[in-house]
Amino acid sequence: MAEACNFVFDELEPGQRASYTRTIDFRHIQLFAAATGDVNPVHLDAAYAATTAFGEPIAHGMLTGGLVSAALALVLPGPGTVYLSQSLRFRAPVHVGDRITVELTVTDKNPRRQWVTLDCRAVNQHGKVVTQGSAEVIAPARKLSLELPPEPAVTLAGETP
Amino acid sequence: MAEACNFVFDELEPGQRASYTRTIDFRHIQLFAAATGDVNPVHLDAAYAATTAFGEPIAHGMLTGGLVSAALALVLPGPGTVYLSQSLRFRAPVHVGDRITVELTVTDKNPRRQWVTLDCRAVNQHGKVVTQGSAEVIAPARKLSLELPPEPAVTLAGETP
Repeated sequence: MAEACNFVFDELEPGQRASYTRTIDFRHIQLFAAATGDVNPVHLDAAYAATTAFGEPIAHGMLTGGLVSAALALVLPGPGTVYLSQSLRFRAPVHVGDRITVELTVTDKNPRRQWVTLDCRAVNQHGKVVTQGSAEVIAPARKLSLELPPEPAVTLAGETP
Repeated sequence: MAEACNFVFDELEPGQRASYTRTIDFRHIQLFAAATGDVNPVHLDAAYAATTAFGEPIAHGMLTGGLVSAALALVLPGPGTVYLSQSLRFRAPVHVGDRITVELTVTDKNPRRQWVTLDCRAVNQHGKVVTQGSAEVIAPARKLSLELPPEPAVTLAGETP
């Protein structure tokens, strides 16, 4: 994605939908751990994860939360959105290689405060809802069309730059 | 942090507290962007951020969400915790260099389901609450003391490995 446009308050209507898809690789889990310090071995250590009910490494629930945040920031309403609140219910684990689609639906608007609420659900490649919740945002104040920076180039230990 | 122990259901009481602190560097913001794909320039591009109300790059709100998740996973209740839900209200921006402390307080227990609720607040080095919410978890089923893996070693473009 190289460019993003946005939707200001008057362009948003209940029922309006958009989505954002990302396939979760093990390196995304490693990068999330390096960003947050959450080195829980159920995410990073296959031998440990094998001893748990999950059987194999799973993504941090909040990594899927980050995909929801990305969907709001980049797609609907898009750049200029101010994030007020988010609820998330973690309903099923996300495994390495899962293709997660965040589906956003505008559910309500508050004209006085320019607040918009959106239903957020993250669905895997099998159609199963892995995470579900609601976001409250301030819609962008002005129309924008932005060239997005590239994803930061990172090399994990053992990878070739 | 090289080792983490946990608290099983019977060891958790309302009022019990713990905290987790991390100083947010620009590289954490870059790693979060590379993990989630959220390349919103308000986080990554200082020139763009200067044109916004924030004046300078701010951390993704959900990066602070990741610190809350880390606190639950590593400290209270700690390893073996199953994350059920999280609410987050983003009350103030997190800037590069801010030292964020997540403060957790057990607020309720449900003996039948082994569910525990915790109040979560993230406070900056000036004592200002930047993010606030509530988590619902299943307490660890068994007592654990775990050697934690190191944070994944990552090199960003331009850094020396």
